[in-house]
Amino acid sequence: MNSYSEGKIKAYQDKNENRARFLIKCPDQPGIVAAVSKYLYDHEANIVASDQYTVDPEGGEFFMRIEFECPDLLVRAEMLEEGFLPLAEKFQMNWKIMYVSELKNIAIFVSKEPHCLLELLWEWQSGDLMANIALVISNHETAREMVESLGIPFYYIPANKEIRIQVEQQQKELLGQYDVDLIVLARYMQILTNDFVKGYENRIINIHHSFLPAFIGAKPYERAYQRGVKMIGATSHYVTSDLDEGPIIEQNIGRVDHRDNEEGMKKIGQSIERSVLARAVKWHLDDRIIVHRNKTIVF
Amino acid sequence: MNSYSEGKIKAYQDKNENRARFLIKCPDQPGIVAAVSKYLYDHEANIVASDQYTVDPEGGEFFMRIEFECPDLLVRAEMLEEGFLPLAEKFQMNWKIMYVSELKNIAIFVSKEPHCLLELLWEWQSGDLMANIALVISNHETAREMVESLGIPFYYIPANKEIRIQVEQQQKELLGQYDVDLIVLARYMQILTNDFVKGYENRIINIHHSFLPAFIGAKPYERAYQRGVKMIGATSHYVTSDLDEGPIIEQNIGRVDHRDNEEGMKKIGQSIERSVLARAVKWHLDDRIIVHRNKTIVF
Amino acid sequence: MNSYSEGKIKAYQDKNENRARFLIKCPDQPGIVAAVSKYLYDHEANIVASDQYTVDPEGGEFFMRIEFECPDLLVRAEMLEEGFLPLAEKFQMNWKIMYVSELKNIAIFVSKEPHCLLELLWEWQSGDLMANIALVISNHETAREMVESLGIPFYYIPANKEIRIQVEQQQKELLGQYDVDLIVLARYMQILTNDFVKGYENRIINIHHSFLPAFIGAKPYERAYQRGVKMIGATSHYVTSDLDEGPIIEQNIGRVDHRDNEEGMKKIGQSIERSVLARAVKWHLDDRIIVHRNKTIVF
Amino acid sequence: MNSYSEGKIKAYQDKNENRARFLIKCPDQPGIVAAVSKYLYDHEANIVASDQYTVDPEGGEFFMRIEFECPDLLVRAEMLEEGFLPLAEKFQMNWKIMYVSELKNIAIFVSKEPHCLLELLWEWQSGDLMANIALVISNHETAREMVESLGIPFYYIPANKEIRIQVEQQQKELLGQYDVDLIVLARYMQILTNDFVKGYENRIINIHHSFLPAFIGAKPYERAYQRGVKMIGATSHYVTSDLDEGPIIEQNIGRVDHRDNEEGMKKIGQSIERSVLARAVKWHLDDRIIVHRNKTIVF
Repeated sequence: MNSYSEGKIKAYQDKNENRARFLIKCPDQPGIVAAVSKYLYDHEANIVASDQYTVDPEGGEFFMRIEFECPDLLVRAEMLEEGFLPLAEKFQMNWKIMYVSELKNIAIFVSKEPHCLLELLWEWQSGDLMANIALVISNHETAREMVESLGIPFYYIPANKEIRIQVEQQQKELLGQYDVDLIVLARYMQILTNDFVKGYENRIINIHHSFLPAFIGAKPYERAYQRGVKMIGATSHYVTSDLDEGPIIEQNIGRVDHRDNEEGMKKIGQSIERSVLARAVKWHLDDRIIVHRNKTIVF
Repeated sequence: MNSYSEGKIKAYQDKNENRARFLIKCPDQPGIVAAVSKYLYDHEANIVASDQYTVDPEGGEFFMRIEFECPDLLVRAEMLEEGFLPLAEKFQMNWKIMYVSELKNIAIFVSKEPHCLLELLWEWQSGDLMANIALVISNHETAREMVESLGIPFYYIPANKEIRIQVEQQQKELLGQYDVDLIVLARYMQILTNDFVKGYENRIINIHHSFLPAFIGAKPYERAYQRGVKMIGATSHYVTSDLDEGPIIEQNIGRVDHRDNEEGMKKIGQSIERSVLARAVKWHLDDRIIVHRNKTIVF
Repeated sequence: MNSYSEGKIKAYQDKNENRARFLIKCPDQPGIVAAVSKYLYDHEANIVASDQYTVDPEGGEFFMRIEFECPDLLVRAEMLEEGFLPLAEKFQMNWKIMYVSELKNIAIFVSKEPHCLLELLWEWQSGDLMANIALVISNHETAREMVESLGIPFYYIPANKEIRIQVEQQQKELLGQYDVDLIVLARYMQILTNDFVKGYENRIINIHHSFLPAFIGAKPYERAYQRGVKMIGATSHYVTSDLDEGPIIEQNIGRVDHRDNEEGMKKIGQSIERSVLARAVKWHLDDRIIVHRNKTIVF
Repeated sequence: MNSYSEGKIKAYQDKNENRARFLIKCPDQPGIVAAVSKYLYDHEANIVASDQYTVDPEGGEFFMRIEFECPDLLVRAEMLEEGFLPLAEKFQMNWKIMYVSELKNIAIFVSKEPHCLLELLWEWQSGDLMANIALVISNHETAREMVESLGIPFYYIPANKEIRIQVEQQQKELLGQYDVDLIVLARYMQILTNDFVKGYENRIINIHHSFLPAFIGAKPYERAYQRGVKMIGATSHYVTSDLDEGPIIEQNIGRVDHRDNEEGMKKIGQSIERSVLARAVKWHLDDRIIVHRNKTIVF
């Protein structure tokens, strides 16, 4: 990491030391907004932004994200959280408060193609991705130079179907060691076991190189070319035990035409993959995503 | 108007008879959200959507739009509004409640080129623009057939600089007669007097055929072509006494290239003008726009 | 049809009376461009635009579209075509010359939802879709008013699986009677028989309300909502005997989010369907599309 | 430069060793296409792609770009060029042939904000920008670490209005020493003298952080915020002696809303600047741009 990005991150933390995000999920019922906003008002917290959503007006599920500022936030944090318990119980809330100045630890998994990894490193270097990139794990040596030149630890762990359990054991140890909050599969071409996935529920983000649910599975660009589509896409989603079926976070597409062969589609697609994955990761870091069943609410 | 669109409008009104929109603007201070949400809760109103914005966290201006549903809304409306007066006074609020089932009356002004008028008529016919198009006023006869074939009154009022005062007098009488809430200048190429504009503050929407502030004034496509731009745009804005300087509501652009001459740019541009104007009008009809100084907040 | 659009069409025909489009498809080999451009030069034709494409540089298929102007074009047309025969034979060309001022006859098929039909009528009325809309055929009465008010013949032919053969017989008679060049399925919800389709190879354009190959078949918006996608799309394609599998002409997508339920997605989707279908139809009318196997080349 | 990108560049050069681009500009007249395509055919060159454009069908200027492949291209290059002279003279052509495997040398100028520089380095590292980044020149030390870590020479040359002549003298020496073909101003905040600009006519590409001609000059984001625009943009153009008035190569825009203050607009804008500049540079490297008066033709 260079001094430029270090400066950017430090400034971000300083600016946001009194800022937090309040995420709430509970059965819909009258009076939630009134109660929560009163609670924050009583604790001198100023609501900076607020979003809410109800799945079905009658008898449905209610979701809310509030961004607030509060003097001496980190000092009062415990009190703020404990004091909220009675309200949370009354409304049967699933909730958490995230403190903006506490950066999340990320592990990036990558195989041979480094474009998505490079994008994340780029955004991080330029101060646009506010997190601590704790380590990179790869089953290839391709990316070692790029990663280590930025002072980020790089672990080469060869992987294949036969040794999956041992490989994941090694990975889990590293993830624990670095206290990782979020795993990003930046074109990591190995399937993860259900057991591994469960340990990081809604905390593994993958990028699939098609506009899901079109071209689920292998070789999406080749199949897109065969079908003669006029647009290709990419999809980032949380990983679940169903391959390419997890909650979609973000998608985007790009135009192709008859002049674009498989190679050309891949090139156009890679640029879409980069931005779609980076956006999904940043939304996760900003605590903007709530998972509800197999869908995401992105505030 | 055909039976298809009549059915669409009727269904919309029925569905929304208990729905209203609450618009608030006041000095920022703690407790506004808490107070308003409690007020609505106490009156059995269920908040369906809520947006807020503060210009400057400290000592700034606060804006809020709440969409709510309430049983027997139209019966309780008066009570709901009167009961709010003490709160409104306490927080120095500028506020209004709009009832979704009460459609607004629109007057469309147009000159020779009918594409923007046609778009509005189209959206209205297909049930996407929920308003009452009360009349069309034009200084040309071009659009008479299209307008009258839909059963909308068409008034031909020749206009030019010399007779501006008399023309506006005639227009004002018609606007009064039809109880018009909103005037849409759908490529009406006459300048309005300050006096006229003041009578409809923030209720006249214009479409300018450039990406303002580029190419303010006359012949924007010709000038865009001369400059060799790679994109052309359109801007819809509320009309103020400063030509092309009013609060911008919406803008969009389209790609052009060296193959597009002035005529080609105009064709591409017209399609942008249509959608930009239609969007601005629909946002206004949905009470999503709050004007603050020379800017719009679009919730 | 009103006098406004009649004027637009007349002006278009006058302006283009000496303009034609030359479409060529043949095995790739050296010298094609040189030979064709020499032929046109020798016949005083001026090349205004030229596009070419080769599927595979070595031993592949070559495609070319040339737009040219030539004095007294319609007088020389026969000579121009006959004179080209030796060259066409030498290079084993599949070719045709289309004369811009000769408008194509269109039949529009529609069921209950009229938004795509309305878009085509709109574009035609405003002079942006240069064709003769000869008739509209529907298995519902919904659209009669809109169509007949523009002076276009409307035929109500009830349809269902059981009477498919008789229905298509009636339709074919009408298509013959009006000398139809192109059939547009503007949300016509009946399946056509292979026999019918073969009679109009690469001359039936359909709009499917999903981003193919995602959500092939019935109820795409419902399924898109269930999957939690962040974008929905529409696809226009030539109809073949495989449902939703014909050569894709154009696709586009729009953003949706968690707030959009099935109804909301449908509304957003309909606006995409409209523009995607209109674009595909206009490209066909401009002779810009060449079908090669199951793909389109759109020049 | 790492081994990953070295491999990408090598593969590109090998694949394109027999490929060239032919750029032509001449007075329009019949027979040009026929003559040039015959010339290439006679020299065993296979036309892979071809674009043409005429400013005005009658008596205007003609432009053509042909991409072709030819066995033993580099061996025949001299013969190919010399043999073309008579034709070129006959049609008064301004022409050149560019050999794809010969990479261009780039110098990047940058001041304090490194985002555009970083984008170019990123694209280069990932094998998407096929050129030799010969050196980076800056009037600040900010970017030294990023540049040198990739093995690219970095020159710090402090600059201001008073010492402009001396500074440019130093710069010109470096440009000569590295045999630079193209200068990219990646947010270089110093004005260049006319004398300097003339030495690199149509070979200096700048990025301006607004949608020109809106917000020419200083502080475009601040002024965009003041005006309340709903979109902000960026423009890349060749540098001429008129500030921000040179031929536009590429533009793009991004949406902003009332929530985006100056800082937010800048962040959104920077991402647009990055991609707009990178695209313009890549089109220049692909010899796709012809400058005609104060406009560009981008094939």
